[in-house]
Amino acid sequence: MWSGRAHRDGEIEGTVDVSIAEAGEFGLIARIVARLGSGPASLLGPGDDAALVAAPDGRTVASTDVLVEGRHFRRDWSSAADVGHRAAAANLADIAAMGAGPTALLVALCVPQDLDVAWAEDLAGGLSAEAGLVGAAVVGGDMSSSPTLTIAVTALGDLGGRPPVLRSGAQPGDIVALAGRTGYAAAGYTVLSRGFRTPKVLVEAYRRPAVPYAQGPAAARAGATSLIDVSDGLLQDLGHVATASVVGIDVRRDAFDVPDQMRDAASALGVDPHLWLLAGGDDHALAATFPPGAALPEGWREIGSVHEGTGVTVDRKPWQGGAGWDHFR
Amino acid sequence: MWSGRAHRDGEIEGTVDVSIAEAGEFGLIARIVARLGSGPASLLGPGDDAALVAAPDGRTVASTDVLVEGRHFRRDWSSAADVGHRAAAANLADIAAMGAGPTALLVALCVPQDLDVAWAEDLAGGLSAEAGLVGAAVVGGDMSSSPTLTIAVTALGDLGGRPPVLRSGAQPGDIVALAGRTGYAAAGYTVLSRGFRTPKVLVEAYRRPAVPYAQGPAAARAGATSLIDVSDGLLQDLGHVATASVVGIDVRRDAFDVPDQMRDAASALGVDPHLWLLAGGDDHALAATFPPGAALPEGWREIGSVHEGTGVTVDRKPWQGGAGWDHFR
Repeated sequence: MWSGRAHRDGEIEGTVDVSIAEAGEFGLIARIVARLGSGPASLLGPGDDAALVAAPDGRTVASTDVLVEGRHFRRDWSSAADVGHRAAAANLADIAAMGAGPTALLVALCVPQDLDVAWAEDLAGGLSAEAGLVGAAVVGGDMSSSPTLTIAVTALGDLGGRPPVLRSGAQPGDIVALAGRTGYAAAGYTVLSRGFRTPKVLVEAYRRPAVPYAQGPAAARAGATSLIDVSDGLLQDLGHVATASVVGIDVRRDAFDVPDQMRDAASALGVDPHLWLLAGGDDHALAATFPPGAALPEGWREIGSVHEGTGVTVDRKPWQGGAGWDHFR
Repeated sequence: MWSGRAHRDGEIEGTVDVSIAEAGEFGLIARIVARLGSGPASLLGPGDDAALVAAPDGRTVASTDVLVEGRHFRRDWSSAADVGHRAAAANLADIAAMGAGPTALLVALCVPQDLDVAWAEDLAGGLSAEAGLVGAAVVGGDMSSSPTLTIAVTALGDLGGRPPVLRSGAQPGDIVALAGRTGYAAAGYTVLSRGFRTPKVLVEAYRRPAVPYAQGPAAARAGATSLIDVSDGLLQDLGHVATASVVGIDVRRDAFDVPDQMRDAASALGVDPHLWLLAGGDDHALAATFPPGAALPEGWREIGSVHEGTGVTVDRKPWQGGAGWDHFR
């Protein structure tokens, strides 16, 4: 845990091009802590053996996600701030996907010795800014040198007295609904991997997902029977809901309009845009099921239905377009 | 966050010599989750977007520590279970050092593709067993492949209605006290680094610290004015207390008897054993200050005093034996 001495020594300069080896552990921590804010749930932030976070519900929602350079991000494709936004978003979305409101982040950062201190500072700025979107803050962390740049983030959240919305509650007859975008990040990734930098809307979506955080608690309040963060791809993540709920799920392809810029990019790159929309990950949309006849909260749209059976289909047929992302393949 | 499908597929075999590349992400997660237990605070464990942990106090204590292969552990010096014990202990000790009782761990695990699945399973077993010592459990985590074996652990805890015991509360006139051992892990590290495997008590102390977890809450109940986990070395960590509390701390060298096996090893290796006792880290003893005249709880012993001033001295003189551990040097 970040130590008290570090955030008190105050020797924070504006210098760039200082490597982490030169700044030292405590120097680096001081610079990073200076970039963090505070939130209403931050009862005690960095500087002691542990942080203290408000948990008014009497329960804490907690989730961990790790990003590894070369696997989850590339420094030539994303700025440090972008990586910070994305690392925070991946975790905060998991909290929202329980129907909870995020309260705090903790960050374990492993950095090569020759990394610029400015990169680590900007990463902290991105993490802090994304957390700030939902009133959360980075309350603690740890740091080590490592040959592999690695960012492990833990997010905490509060349910506000509501039960958590699990993956296992979908019932035959339920509506399947979506909040937020799908396909944008995957399209942006494909664009970047082919050496392009535009369309900007797609590339930016890959760099910094626009997560509909508030739609998690909104779905919970509206009676969602199941809820999940779309991180691996819509069909794969709905597959987790189908398995956990022991139901089948059908998605309507015509519920997905192809945005113009995605259509143009798909055409230029020779890709079926529905592959991005239905199987692309990393946008961190939220998918939920609601009882039949439920009034969907604003920001949610119907995309399919739950039936007795198993697995996920598109227009009642098996999907042939490829699956989501397994980080080991 | 570990997904629901993984812990439900049940395809857990007893096979060894399966690499992680062969087992795949979901296969590996299933095997790891099978090694985890549950605790009284585990309201919802692995399998959904996030875990749910009891926080009866209405606040959650949270701390993160990361272990990187080659920097914090070596696979030829420590078994996978040892590394699990140590990774958990480093975090659980931070919770105890706030005066809190640990409730849950979350683990981000980055593994090379050629790692044996059995290693990861045994790591999970060690993490779970160490957490079980304090009634906590591993409730969630994430996994990625990485060239560098990395284990980031977040521990959560509950204060049971007490205020946290910070580093900043020491007052001139206070007693400085210690619970647990110092020097053993550092001695074990030195023994291993010189190519030896004995004395076993030292080597084992390096592999698996014996942390006096219960002494954290006990110190809090007894009115400790400050409390810290000794992870970097006693003098360095008391330095954090001195800085945060704006006081000076003096440690009595004669409060530290040199155990026979440590004396023998020190003699054989040409090391001053007080370097281990006063500046060696990784045993995760707890150091605290108590008001003058306080009755120390069982398990605590007086080792020094707090005075007006700054910094840490040994027998009122500056320590010449070297400082603690900075992971960037």
